[in-house]
Amino acid sequence: MSSVKVGLLGFGTVGQGIASVLARNADEITRRCGRRVEVTHAAVRDVAKAQAAAAEANLDIQITDDAASVVSHPDIDIICEVMGGEQPALDLCLSALAHGKHISTANKALVAVHGNTLFAAAQKYKVMFGFEPSVAGGIPVIKAVREGLAGNRINSVAGIINGTGNFILTAMTDQGRDFNDVLQEAQALGYAEADPSFDVDGVDAAHKLTLLASIAFGMPLKFDEVLIEGIRNIEQEDVVHANELGYAVKHLGIARRRNIEGKTAVELRVHPTLIPQRQLLANVHGVMNAVLVDSDAVGQSLYYGPGAGSEPTGSAAVADVIDMVRALGSDPTHQVPPLAFQGNALEDIPVLGADDIETGFYCRITAEDKPGVMADIAGIFGKHNISLEAILQKEPDADNAADENAATLLPIVLLSHQVREGVMRQAIAEVEALQSVPSAVVLLRVENL
Amino acid sequence: MSSVKVGLLGFGTVGQGIASVLARNADEITRRCGRRVEVTHAAVRDVAKAQAAAAEANLDIQITDDAASVVSHPDIDIICEVMGGEQPALDLCLSALAHGKHISTANKALVAVHGNTLFAAAQKYKVMFGFEPSVAGGIPVIKAVREGLAGNRINSVAGIINGTGNFILTAMTDQGRDFNDVLQEAQALGYAEADPSFDVDGVDAAHKLTLLASIAFGMPLKFDEVLIEGIRNIEQEDVVHANELGYAVKHLGIARRRNIEGKTAVELRVHPTLIPQRQLLANVHGVMNAVLVDSDAVGQSLYYGPGAGSEPTGSAAVADVIDMVRALGSDPTHQVPPLAFQGNALEDIPVLGADDIETGFYCRITAEDKPGVMADIAGIFGKHNISLEAILQKEPDADNAADENAATLLPIVLLSHQVREGVMRQAIAEVEALQSVPSAVVLLRVENL
Repeated sequence: MSSVKVGLLGFGTVGQGIASVLARNADEITRRCGRRVEVTHAAVRDVAKAQAAAAEANLDIQITDDAASVVSHPDIDIICEVMGGEQPALDLCLSALAHGKHISTANKALVAVHGNTLFAAAQKYKVMFGFEPSVAGGIPVIKAVREGLAGNRINSVAGIINGTGNFILTAMTDQGRDFNDVLQEAQALGYAEADPSFDVDGVDAAHKLTLLASIAFGMPLKFDEVLIEGIRNIEQEDVVHANELGYAVKHLGIARRRNIEGKTAVELRVHPTLIPQRQLLANVHGVMNAVLVDSDAVGQSLYYGPGAGSEPTGSAAVADVIDMVRALGSDPTHQVPPLAFQGNALEDIPVLGADDIETGFYCRITAEDKPGVMADIAGIFGKHNISLEAILQKEPDADNAADENAATLLPIVLLSHQVREGVMRQAIAEVEALQSVPSAVVLLRVENL
Repeated sequence: MSSVKVGLLGFGTVGQGIASVLARNADEITRRCGRRVEVTHAAVRDVAKAQAAAAEANLDIQITDDAASVVSHPDIDIICEVMGGEQPALDLCLSALAHGKHISTANKALVAVHGNTLFAAAQKYKVMFGFEPSVAGGIPVIKAVREGLAGNRINSVAGIINGTGNFILTAMTDQGRDFNDVLQEAQALGYAEADPSFDVDGVDAAHKLTLLASIAFGMPLKFDEVLIEGIRNIEQEDVVHANELGYAVKHLGIARRRNIEGKTAVELRVHPTLIPQRQLLANVHGVMNAVLVDSDAVGQSLYYGPGAGSEPTGSAAVADVIDMVRALGSDPTHQVPPLAFQGNALEDIPVLGADDIETGFYCRITAEDKPGVMADIAGIFGKHNISLEAILQKEPDADNAADENAATLLPIVLLSHQVREGVMRQAIAEVEALQSVPSAVVLLRVENL
């Protein structure tokens, strides 16, 4: 049987990973799927650079700057889109689908924002659209949730799905360093971009969370409704207090099914989160990723591995490709639908606003050290029916205490039980209005996953 | 479209889990695979008992003691074999395959011992044979290795794949209790059978390891060649020493690809193992399971979850069933082969004997406290080129020291670097032959996964 030919859109880190994995493991892959699979074409902007990279890796690939010729090439069955960005990736993918090509993409931004359009086109043209490389790099978590847990009603998905952020928080925890200091190291090591915003402000994690939520709950992609908070404002002091209370600070993407007065709704959120140190997720360090899934039949299962990198991400694309090779020539009713649920069976589940999210909270209040302050604060929480799990009152700040004219300031750390965020925000506004509380309260969410 | 009908062989814990999951999540599952899936028949020995269980769970299932009628029933497309044991399970599965039924089985003993026969029959009759519920309960690890990592050359698989053993070792570590004491608790809790041999002696783990190794390396099942050691002889003292050295004691199944003079061979082994406490596997506690896979493109990935139980294992069977529902009516060339590799592409990789395995070792030597003993012992290891990573010399045993007539005995704990097991065994034999070493050396393997 003739080999299956794969065309790449883009030949950067991930594209080269795909080509290398397919070439190096060609025999192994042929033994698995019964047919030889090879990358024959790659479309790039800088042809000379890509040709040099291909020659360097000993890969025999036709490099072109005419992407349209690749997505319409009659010999190519499968396209791997690894160029990134929304355009021209979107138009090229739509064209590839219209030409009957299956697609695997590592482009989470593209899928999170335009996935509904792309999946509809894939359904129309009866081809597969995979995005395993878009989420958590080398971890086959899309397959696990979409197929491995297909018998389950999924309650929640919570993951460390941005390696850069986890690298920074790990170093802040283990080495007592500040955010900016570690960010510079991450940039020097190539873990963070020159403009780190996508990673540290949570946009990248929100893209991935959008995909995970849709395959978990069978709902259309709703990137615009994800609550997104980054880790730029995490202070060393809060990492230390959290540790003292038995918690690690992790940047998590969380999608949770809720039942509100008999109706299903979901929370979609990316934010720094305190989680108990004894939990496996708290022990995922550095650039590694992990996704914890809670589902009705299995309970908790966790998927761990490298969240980025040339060959890990390449491996995920190749897994998609092998699924597609197996499906070549079969009726599309035999295919696994991209969002795990049949295209006509998606359910438009509403996403809860920030006020309706329920979590525990870590509050660091800086208050003047004088009688009655603690009673005032406790009174406010009590009035709002917020019950507290722990209180940590620290010694006055030494620098501040040395200034005789200023009032002595105390950091007071409170951990609340689970509460609706709107209620907590109202209580915090009241605390911040107290005369004895001169500065803003630091608020972080807490999860006992 | 009419519903897909599933017949069960057996209606115990797992069978009831499958039926419950399929019934409770019927809508969700239909949304995923496009067709309704229902358990219609179950074959059991004790019809009245099964009828009572079905009624209790509100399940409308035809119960019969005529298993042959289920495996040949014209309305049934898929059989879930959850009766356990080798016979009549083997004959019934072969009959079901001959009748064109797809099969999912939770019976690891059956597959480990008779898998080669069963897979050949499945290939002959062009149906699928799944065994996701046979390994690690609710964790979709078969799918992850077989499909999610399909682009990888897999180097090793190492797992905590017996929950009973992990429960016992966890309690021995956390609570300082002895093996027999914890075993009794495990039996009282229903985690261990009245005859715990399958679990604590490693046979169950060896069954599962056999399956994992075959899908990882594309080799026929070789249960007979697995090196199997259980945890009955693990002493509290060694758990304490290991902890002091920074290691946890876990009962692992390990399959590792080795390259010996340019030829591929594999290690297949189940034994108590010291692993560094900081590793995720060391933090898998109680009855939970986890499998760590090392592969060339991804590097390390880990899969964690409940390794047993009615609904977790039921979930795994349902995932197999949904794969089969999707494949109904399609050409078998589109199916994922049971062992991940095409039936005609399996490679008969030789399994290394115990002497050729390479690991680190923990050795606890009880020696008389007199000059020159340490030099004698160190001399023996040096002669065999075994380099040592750590030495822990403990205070003399207090009880023993009180007896004036006896020589004072010292426990000496050594950790070696990686060494061929045959070499280590020879060194240990020489140590045991020393006059100053009156009793057998305790030897445990060490892995830095």
